[in-house]
Amino acid sequence: MSADELPPPSPRLVAAYDAERFRADGHAVIDRLADHLAAAADGPVLPWQSPTAAVAAWPDDFPDEPDPAADLVTTIERTLAGSIRLHHPRYLGHQVPPPLPAAALADAMAALLNNGMAVYEMGGVATPHELAVVSWMARTLGLPDGAGGLLTSGGSLGNLTALLAARAARAGHDVWTEGSHAAAPLAVLVARTAHYSIDRAVRTLGWGEGGAVAVAVDAGYRLDPSDLARAHAVALAEGRRPIAVVASAGSTATGAYDPLEPIADFCAAHGLWLHVDGAHGAAAALSPLHAHRVRGLERADSIVWDAHKLLAMPALCTAVLYRDAEHAYGAFAQEASYLFARERQWWNLGLRTLECTKRMMGSIVYACLRAHGVGWFRDYVERVFALAAALAARLEAAADFELALTPEANIVCFRYRPVSGPMPGPDLDALQAAVRTRCRDRGEVYFLDTLLGGERWLRTAVMNPLTTGVELDALLDAIRAAA
Amino acid sequence: MSADELPPPSPRLVAAYDAERFRADGHAVIDRLADHLAAAADGPVLPWQSPTAAVAAWPDDFPDEPDPAADLVTTIERTLAGSIRLHHPRYLGHQVPPPLPAAALADAMAALLNNGMAVYEMGGVATPHELAVVSWMARTLGLPDGAGGLLTSGGSLGNLTALLAARAARAGHDVWTEGSHAAAPLAVLVARTAHYSIDRAVRTLGWGEGGAVAVAVDAGYRLDPSDLARAHAVALAEGRRPIAVVASAGSTATGAYDPLEPIADFCAAHGLWLHVDGAHGAAAALSPLHAHRVRGLERADSIVWDAHKLLAMPALCTAVLYRDAEHAYGAFAQEASYLFARERQWWNLGLRTLECTKRMMGSIVYACLRAHGVGWFRDYVERVFALAAALAARLEAAADFELALTPEANIVCFRYRPVSGPMPGPDLDALQAAVRTRCRDRGEVYFLDTLLGGERWLRTAVMNPLTTGVELDALLDAIRAAA
Repeated sequence: MSADELPPPSPRLVAAYDAERFRADGHAVIDRLADHLAAAADGPVLPWQSPTAAVAAWPDDFPDEPDPAADLVTTIERTLAGSIRLHHPRYLGHQVPPPLPAAALADAMAALLNNGMAVYEMGGVATPHELAVVSWMARTLGLPDGAGGLLTSGGSLGNLTALLAARAARAGHDVWTEGSHAAAPLAVLVARTAHYSIDRAVRTLGWGEGGAVAVAVDAGYRLDPSDLARAHAVALAEGRRPIAVVASAGSTATGAYDPLEPIADFCAAHGLWLHVDGAHGAAAALSPLHAHRVRGLERADSIVWDAHKLLAMPALCTAVLYRDAEHAYGAFAQEASYLFARERQWWNLGLRTLECTKRMMGSIVYACLRAHGVGWFRDYVERVFALAAALAARLEAAADFELALTPEANIVCFRYRPVSGPMPGPDLDALQAAVRTRCRDRGEVYFLDTLLGGERWLRTAVMNPLTTGVELDALLDAIRAAA
Repeated sequence: MSADELPPPSPRLVAAYDAERFRADGHAVIDRLADHLAAAADGPVLPWQSPTAAVAAWPDDFPDEPDPAADLVTTIERTLAGSIRLHHPRYLGHQVPPPLPAAALADAMAALLNNGMAVYEMGGVATPHELAVVSWMARTLGLPDGAGGLLTSGGSLGNLTALLAARAARAGHDVWTEGSHAAAPLAVLVARTAHYSIDRAVRTLGWGEGGAVAVAVDAGYRLDPSDLARAHAVALAEGRRPIAVVASAGSTATGAYDPLEPIADFCAAHGLWLHVDGAHGAAAALSPLHAHRVRGLERADSIVWDAHKLLAMPALCTAVLYRDAEHAYGAFAQEASYLFARERQWWNLGLRTLECTKRMMGSIVYACLRAHGVGWFRDYVERVFALAAALAARLEAAADFELALTPEANIVCFRYRPVSGPMPGPDLDALQAAVRTRCRDRGEVYFLDTLLGGERWLRTAVMNPLTTGVELDALLDAIRAAA
C-alpha cells in the first residue's frame, strides 16, 4: 500500500473518540450515578430475579450498528436498576464494600488513561502511586525498613503470588528451573478456616490435596498453634517438605484472627515462611482499638491485604507485601526483551506481578488517601467493627437468636432458633437456609449462610459504615418474619 | 454493647458518601477528562521524567486529615498531566489501546456498583452481561455450540487458567488431588515467540524450564508445524508427558500468526490439547479481510482473547474460551460453603475463575457493544491493521529503513540503517536503542525496541485508530532526527 492509499478513519471511529460526546455522555452518567447513590436506602437491597430471567433480559445478539434502544446511558440505567446495592444500609452480605464514591471517579480516570504499568514508561504516574500506596500499607502494618511489595488483581492471585515467593525462598531447590519433580513434594500448614483460595493455590502449584496440611482450630475458629508441631510431623511423615504456615487475619467465615505471635515463633523455630492472608482483616492495624488483633503481623514474610475490602475501594486492588522486598522478584523470574532491559529495575512493576498489563489500581487508592485522609479509613474500620459488635449484642439479648461466637471483626455468624421450634439438627439447618433464601427473594435485607462445624448458620459482614442500629433491628425482624 | 450505645457514623464517613458531593466532583472530573481527550493530539505523547523524580513528586506521607493541596480533582489533574497519552495519535508503543471513552464511563458505573460477581446474587446484571459477551466472543471465533468460558483479570491469568484446564483434561491423572509428583512431569510444546506469560505459567505450575519445549519458528517468526514431531519426541525422551501445544495468534514481538490448521491436525493426531493465545490477535476474526489469519482457531480447545487489546477496552478484561464449556469447571474444582451450594451452577461464575471477587468487566464490554455496534470494533481492527501495512510500505520505500517482516497484524518491526552508517552488528544494535531512548525522552513519538533473532529492532504497535499517515511520516522523521 502506498502512503497515498491510506484513507482517513471511518466517521464512527472518529465519533466514538469525540471529546464533546464524552463530555455530554459523562455528565449524564454522573447524574444517573449520583441519583442512584442518593436513593441508596430506597427500595430493595437486591432486586432479585432468577438467573434464567436475567439472561433473557440481556441477550447476546449484538447488532452491527448501534442499538437505538440501548445507548450508553440507557444500558447504565438498566444496570443500576438490576444490580445489588452495596450502598444500601441493609446490605449485610459478602465482604465487598460500598466503594468510596471518590474511588469510582478516580476509576474513570484510570480507565480512560489506561496506563498499562508493566514498565514504568507505561505508568509514569501510576508507578509512583503504587509504590507510595504499598509503602504506606507496609508501614501501617509495622513492617520494617526494607519491606515492600506490589498491587495485584485480587486476593486469590495475591495468595498465589505469595506462595510462589515462599516456594522460591524455601523449597530447597530451584523449582522455577528444575520443576517440582526434582525434589520431594512441598506443603503448607494451614487451618481449614482459611479462604478457599489457599487450597486453590496449593493445587494450582501442583502440590495436590496433601499440599495443604490441616491444622486444628480452637473453639473460636482460630488456628491452634499447639497443633502446628503435629501438622508439621504429618507433612514430614507423608514425605513432604513443609515450607510455610498460612495464617488468616481474619478468616472468611467468621472473621476470627489466627494468633500470629505463637505462629511466628513456630515458623522461626522451624525455618518456615509465614504467610498471612490478611485480605479482609489486616485493616485492623489502622485502628488503635483493633490493632491488637494483628499483633505479630510484622513478623510475617508475606502478607495479602485487599484494598477492595476494608479500605472501601472498588474491586480489584490487592497488596502483596513482603517483609524483605527482594522476595518480590523471587515469585517470577524471567525476561522479555521487549519489556525489560535487565532484571530488578525497581521502577518496572511487571517483574513482580503475574499481570503484564495492569489497571492503575494504585492511583485510585492514592487519590482517595489524599482526598479523604488516613483518618477516614480508620473511621471506616472502627465503624463496621462497632456495628458487628452491636449486632452481636442484639443477638445475645434476643431469646430466639443464637450467636456462634463473639465477633473479632465485622463478620457475625448466628442462627435463628425460635423458643418453641426445631432442636439443633437437620430441621434447624433447613430453617436457616429457608429463611436466608426468603429474605433474599424479598430483597429487604441481604445476608448469607455458611457451614460452621458442619451446621448451617446465618452470616453477615457489615460493610456499609452508614448502616445504623435501625437496620440491625430490621435484620432481626426480617428473619423472624421470614421464619 | 447495648443497642443504645451505638453512636451515629462520623460526619466524615457520611460526607464521603454524600450523593451531591459525588455529583459535583463527578461533573468536575468529567470536564477534566473531556478536556484531556480534546487535547489528545497536543503536546508530548509521554511527558518523560526519571523514576526517581516521579517518586519524589508523589510522596507516601499520607496525612490523617484530607490534604488541602490534593483534593480529588487536583490529584486527577496532576495524574492526567504526567501520564502517557494512549489517545495521542503518535502513541505507537505497547499493545494497550486508547480505550473507548464510553468504556471509561461504564467503568465508573462498574466501580460504584462494585458487584463482586463470584456468585450470581452479587452480580445480578453483571453475570448475564458476562455470559452474553463470552457467548458473542465464542461465536465470533466460530466456536461450535457448547462452547463457553469466562472473563478474567488479564491474559497472563487467562493463559494460566487455560493451562490448568488442559492439565485437568490431559495429564492422565488427577493432579488437582494427587499432585504433580504422582506421575511423570508434564510439558507443552510452544514456540519461543510466544508471550512470556506462557513460560511463566508453566513454571508456576511446577513443570520447570523443561515444561515448555521449544518448537522452531519459520523466517516469518511463526511456529513451524513440521518441527512439532521433533519437539514432541524431545519431551518424551526427557521423560515428560506432552499434554498441549500452545500457539500464538499473533505473537507479541511481531504479531505473526502461528498456522493453526496444521497445528490442530498435529494435536488431533497425538491427543494433545490445543491452546491458542489470541490475547492480541484473535480480534482478526471480526474482519472478513483478516479472518484468514485465525483459520483453525475454532478447533482450539482453549483460547485467550484480551478485550483490553484490540477491542479497545480498558485493562483488564480477558476472555478464556473453551470449545467445550464444561472444561471451565476443570481448571478449578472445589467448594466454599458460604459461596457455592453445589458445583456446576452455571450462574455462579466464581467456580470457573481464579478470582473470587471480580470487577464487572463484562458489563463494560456489553454496554459498548450495544452503544457502538459490532461494526465499530470491525472498523477498529481494520484501521489499525491498515495503518501497520501503510507504515510497512513507507519503511520499504525508504532507503534508510529496513523492515523485519511484512506485518500480519498491527505490529511493525524495523530498524534504522543510514545509507552510510554502521553495518549490521553491535553498532547497529546500539543505534536502535539510542534512537529509541532519545525519542522517548523527547516525547514527540512513542515506540519500542525488541530483540529479533538476537538483533535489536525497533517495534511499534499501532493501537490508535485515529493515527493517520501524517503521524507515520512523523515517526520516520523523528527517528532520523534522533539518529
